[in-house]
Amino acid sequence: ASALVSKVLDFASKVRKIAADDPRKVVHCLKVGLALALVSVFYYTRPLYDGVGGAAMWAVMTVVVVFEFTVGGSLYKGLNRATATLSAGSVAFGIHWLAIKSGRTADHIILGASVFLLSSAATFSKFIPAVKARFDYGVTIFILTFNLVAVSSYRVEKLLALAQWRFCTITIGFCICLTVCVVIRPVWAGEELHRLVMRNMEKLADSLEESVAEYLEEEEEGGVDCNQKLGQKSQGYRCVLNSKSSEDSLANLARWEPSHGCFSFKHPWRRYLEVGAAMRQCAYCIESLDSCINSENQPPDSVKKHLAKVYAKVATESSKVLKELASSFRSMRKPSSIDYLVEDMKNTADELQNALGSLPQEATSLIIETLPLITAASLLIEVSARVEG
Amino acid sequence: ASALVSKVLDFASKVRKIAADDPRKVVHCLKVGLALALVSVFYYTRPLYDGVGGAAMWAVMTVVVVFEFTVGGSLYKGLNRATATLSAGSVAFGIHWLAIKSGRTADHIILGASVFLLSSAATFSKFIPAVKARFDYGVTIFILTFNLVAVSSYRVEKLLALAQWRFCTITIGFCICLTVCVVIRPVWAGEELHRLVMRNMEKLADSLEESVAEYLEEEEEGGVDCNQKLGQKSQGYRCVLNSKSSEDSLANLARWEPSHGCFSFKHPWRRYLEVGAAMRQCAYCIESLDSCINSENQPPDSVKKHLAKVYAKVATESSKVLKELASSFRSMRKPSSIDYLVEDMKNTADELQNALGSLPQEATSLIIETLPLITAASLLIEVSARVEG
Repeated sequence: ASALVSKVLDFASKVRKIAADDPRKVVHCLKVGLALALVSVFYYTRPLYDGVGGAAMWAVMTVVVVFEFTVGGSLYKGLNRATATLSAGSVAFGIHWLAIKSGRTADHIILGASVFLLSSAATFSKFIPAVKARFDYGVTIFILTFNLVAVSSYRVEKLLALAQWRFCTITIGFCICLTVCVVIRPVWAGEELHRLVMRNMEKLADSLEESVAEYLEEEEEGGVDCNQKLGQKSQGYRCVLNSKSSEDSLANLARWEPSHGCFSFKHPWRRYLEVGAAMRQCAYCIESLDSCINSENQPPDSVKKHLAKVYAKVATESSKVLKELASSFRSMRKPSSIDYLVEDMKNTADELQNALGSLPQEATSLIIETLPLITAASLLIEVSARVEG
Repeated sequence: ASALVSKVLDFASKVRKIAADDPRKVVHCLKVGLALALVSVFYYTRPLYDGVGGAAMWAVMTVVVVFEFTVGGSLYKGLNRATATLSAGSVAFGIHWLAIKSGRTADHIILGASVFLLSSAATFSKFIPAVKARFDYGVTIFILTFNLVAVSSYRVEKLLALAQWRFCTITIGFCICLTVCVVIRPVWAGEELHRLVMRNMEKLADSLEESVAEYLEEEEEGGVDCNQKLGQKSQGYRCVLNSKSSEDSLANLARWEPSHGCFSFKHPWRRYLEVGAAMRQCAYCIESLDSCINSENQPPDSVKKHLAKVYAKVATESSKVLKELASSFRSMRKPSSIDYLVEDMKNTADELQNALGSLPQEATSLIIETLPLITAASLLIEVSARVEG
């Protein structure tokens, strides 16, 4: 029994941690509850009920399915759903009309064949990357609506009125959903993407600085087994390595959002992906730098001491550049001092190379690693300059 | 007009390429069409229609929403949908009964509060990673069904019969969907994952070999600007870098699959993710090796020539190990010759280190890069030995 209690307590603390880490998640849940409570008003109020009829379930369904964490997500799903319902409805109606015109036996064949062919074609369109990214949900709804209308129309005579009600309730559901989503503490996918990229930049700068500092400290203490001490900060670059998929999905959703805050409707979200790719390049370098630090082939202490200063300088200046970029990203202004900082960084890198030239070879194993890092950093600068410009 | 025609032709060739690259995608589309055509039989046949009634639309909906590319995906969605519908239905029924018992005014409050609270709580549960991975779709359906039943029960008196029909049609839809999915050329998520990991291993081996070969060739031609020549093979490791999300989702789906081929129900799919992580580690090393090759700081030719042989040997033997692992992965047998190969690789690595010791330092920039690669490779071996064992 005590094992069960401790398990429950464990779970509760986990849940509390999730809520504390991002209170917006709790707000989101309350928003969903509110939107659904609002929709049920349509069921409870008599006049509305009589107007919308049994189709009101489509309003509930729309709210449940369309309500997403970000505004972009809700817009994407809502617009896809509305467009797909409308277009699939008209196509199905046209085919139904054609089937009736062509007589009692032919209509079976026409309807069956059209269900088979259109469903297959629509399913295939999902494999096209451009369609997948923007209209995946819409295609699903298209298939669904087309089949429901094409097939049910065979029985129900007042198809047009039904379709009208259905579309009407979907619109009502979408409006309630969107209003709640935008009015109460909206979470914008664009802003999320912006913050993610910015935070990743800061993490990169931190972990670059930290891992070098740890390496030099370790040397002072004379021990090699300080790996366990690796702080959380120096592991920050791992988040950067794995952020590709969240960046991609956020950029996809951000496209659907209207202008908000300092982002216009046509904000170049794609550039964020380029910056993200450049940062991952950077993170790969830090990764191999890290494995060099932890490797068993350590240069002799004398060499390390000789290079420690200039090595620390390169790291500090690279991370300064990254931090400057991050802060200019934060304020959405063109970085002012970045040119000087990059110049400094390049000079220090040259200095490092000269220092390398006057040294026994074992030492280079570690330091040469920073060179691709610097290359990646300058690449990063280039790309982000384009974003800001 | 000709611009339009060329655009259409361009699009058509793109579509043909997608179909030719993976014919299973075309088969999948036809399967979806077939399943939907089968479902519409339920509408067209009178006796079935009278039995299932208007609830037959749920069969169509189930097929459209549940049918996924892999068997695991269909099972995941179908089982989630069935379980969620059943449990949400019973909970909603219980609350409805409670509401009726408590009188005319209290029932509004009870129903409204339960809609708000349960929807919020269920939405929150999606933020818990373990729930998200396995029951994301189920939670959505739970919210949907609960709301539909709780709210509509207020009007419809014969709730129990309705629920029964609805569940029945969902089951029919699920069975049709699953039968078509499994009987006609099934695509197993587990097999896909297995193949993906195997192919990634081969790609790693190829790109390791290729990039080193290119580097040495380049040296023979004396030019540095051969970067453009970088073949497709040597870029294979990039796929490995970006395969994390597809590995994760395939492993999630593979868990739902019954035993098939040489995979049992409790196949350790999680180990595949570990192997994948180790391979990405490897790919990071190749990435920085690549940037070293393309960097402007090239060692003098004499040094390069001196090391070319042993360098090529390390690369060949590392890639041999990877290929042996891949082929043992393919045949699902414990690698037989792997121990010798790893021994060879380690010996050559030692040789390389000795060669380094007798050389001016500039050269080390490139070669030292292979050391973490070897570390990663041996890590990989360790992990995959565990998988096979």
